[in-house]
Amino acid sequence: MKLIRFGQPGREKPGILLDGQRKDLSAFYRDWDREFFNGDGLSNLKKLVMHSELPDVSADERWGAPVSRPGKVICIGLNYSDHAKESNMPIPEEPIVFQKGANTVVGPYDTVIIPRKSVKTDWEVELGVVIGRDARYLESPEDAIRHIAGYCISHDVSERAFQLERGGQWTKGKSCDHFNPLGPWLLTADEVIDPQQLAMQLSVNGERMQTGHTGTMIFGVHFLVHYLSQFMTLEAGDLISTGTPPGVGLGMNPPRYLRAGDVVELSIDGLGSQRQLCVDAE
Amino acid sequence: MKLIRFGQPGREKPGILLDGQRKDLSAFYRDWDREFFNGDGLSNLKKLVMHSELPDVSADERWGAPVSRPGKVICIGLNYSDHAKESNMPIPEEPIVFQKGANTVVGPYDTVIIPRKSVKTDWEVELGVVIGRDARYLESPEDAIRHIAGYCISHDVSERAFQLERGGQWTKGKSCDHFNPLGPWLLTADEVIDPQQLAMQLSVNGERMQTGHTGTMIFGVHFLVHYLSQFMTLEAGDLISTGTPPGVGLGMNPPRYLRAGDVVELSIDGLGSQRQLCVDAE
Repeated sequence: MKLIRFGQPGREKPGILLDGQRKDLSAFYRDWDREFFNGDGLSNLKKLVMHSELPDVSADERWGAPVSRPGKVICIGLNYSDHAKESNMPIPEEPIVFQKGANTVVGPYDTVIIPRKSVKTDWEVELGVVIGRDARYLESPEDAIRHIAGYCISHDVSERAFQLERGGQWTKGKSCDHFNPLGPWLLTADEVIDPQQLAMQLSVNGERMQTGHTGTMIFGVHFLVHYLSQFMTLEAGDLISTGTPPGVGLGMNPPRYLRAGDVVELSIDGLGSQRQLCVDAE
Repeated sequence: MKLIRFGQPGREKPGILLDGQRKDLSAFYRDWDREFFNGDGLSNLKKLVMHSELPDVSADERWGAPVSRPGKVICIGLNYSDHAKESNMPIPEEPIVFQKGANTVVGPYDTVIIPRKSVKTDWEVELGVVIGRDARYLESPEDAIRHIAGYCISHDVSERAFQLERGGQWTKGKSCDHFNPLGPWLLTADEVIDPQQLAMQLSVNGERMQTGHTGTMIFGVHFLVHYLSQFMTLEAGDLISTGTPPGVGLGMNPPRYLRAGDVVELSIDGLGSQRQLCVDAE
């Protein structure tokens, strides 16, 4: 299934994408959130969809992020071997983990906001993993499989000066408003044969910048969920952004960054595509 | 006013502390959360409390964290000049900012859970600041004043090996379950004459470990709120933990860490005291 959400920011309603048409499920569900996922919502939803006539979502309704605001957004740094090589960085021995504010999550076609005083706003296409069942001290990477709700495109927008030149940790450059377009849909895990077999692309103004493949991840999705669960409880609805492949603006010579008017497009096999116009913060 | 919450984990109800007695406000409010704070809830609450008879909370009800689970928990590192000096670390030029998972927040008398495989679980008494109104691009530190709901004790429990020896960023050592006891109450900002004039203490098994004073903060509370708002929107209900004074276990010679059976007690002027028993993770 492809879960979607639609409507105005902060008031999104749940739906699904069925044969290319958005269907409204707000009569049956409040939201695609922790309660829904933990309560075996996905299997109940599957039955409902098979046996019900569902109303269409109007084509002019905004696309929201495909899941409710996550309890936390966990990001993995430097997780592609070809990206590490390109950056002349050693392969990390363990996953590099940081967090973004969950209020950065917006819809897949919303704007990317260039923060005030930013000159280094950069792009990062990433495979997003949404947790489907609370996960704590999983015994093995294989155990992770039944804790994953599904996959979506996650745009981990990053301000490199805020991230790297303003002291200490990375949060400052990762948590600006609109820095995490998500979606357009969450493809449920049962429909993803192998999360390490997905090609991904990102272009700016039509020019291809990132070309990657989840097969070159250093730490794969199942390992990451297992690993993180040794440190913290991953809650249903939490988002993990699993790192970006080569081709970010920071790595170019000279570096290249986003400006108001730029258009960023992202896609991952089976997960659709995103498109954002960059605008200056008011 | 002193805001409190009571009841079982995840099902806490809102109340206040009045002349040492907890009062139940669940008939009037759903929770002390973003909606409450942004909706001018505090001034309405004040009027209500003046003109109503409120039912008592039973003494055997658990104390929860004094506010609903924050949208995000922002922490400031190395923010006390005497702590920096003790650690032989340079004074940061800008605040060091990181995040903890908001699901770490628990009540002030709940257990501190020593994670599996942890040998370096450490204590940190901190002044917690709860945002009272969404804050974005504040113009000055003075502007921060009307965006602060109040203050509380925040115990920023930290696993030093996970934080510092496992690669990259600090999140792994900061986001374990129960790593942020909060409360017992939120003292509203109108009753705090100067947040930089508060003495704070922490002891382990009755032995004083930390003795600090918010007067030695490098970056004061109003500056921090203003500063953070230049990078991200601080939402009402968000928590900022403002850093810890000297005396953490990591800084001792030899270092000293928490074990199951230890009892940690924390207090800050006007904000009450916390007490936690340390237990091993199941």
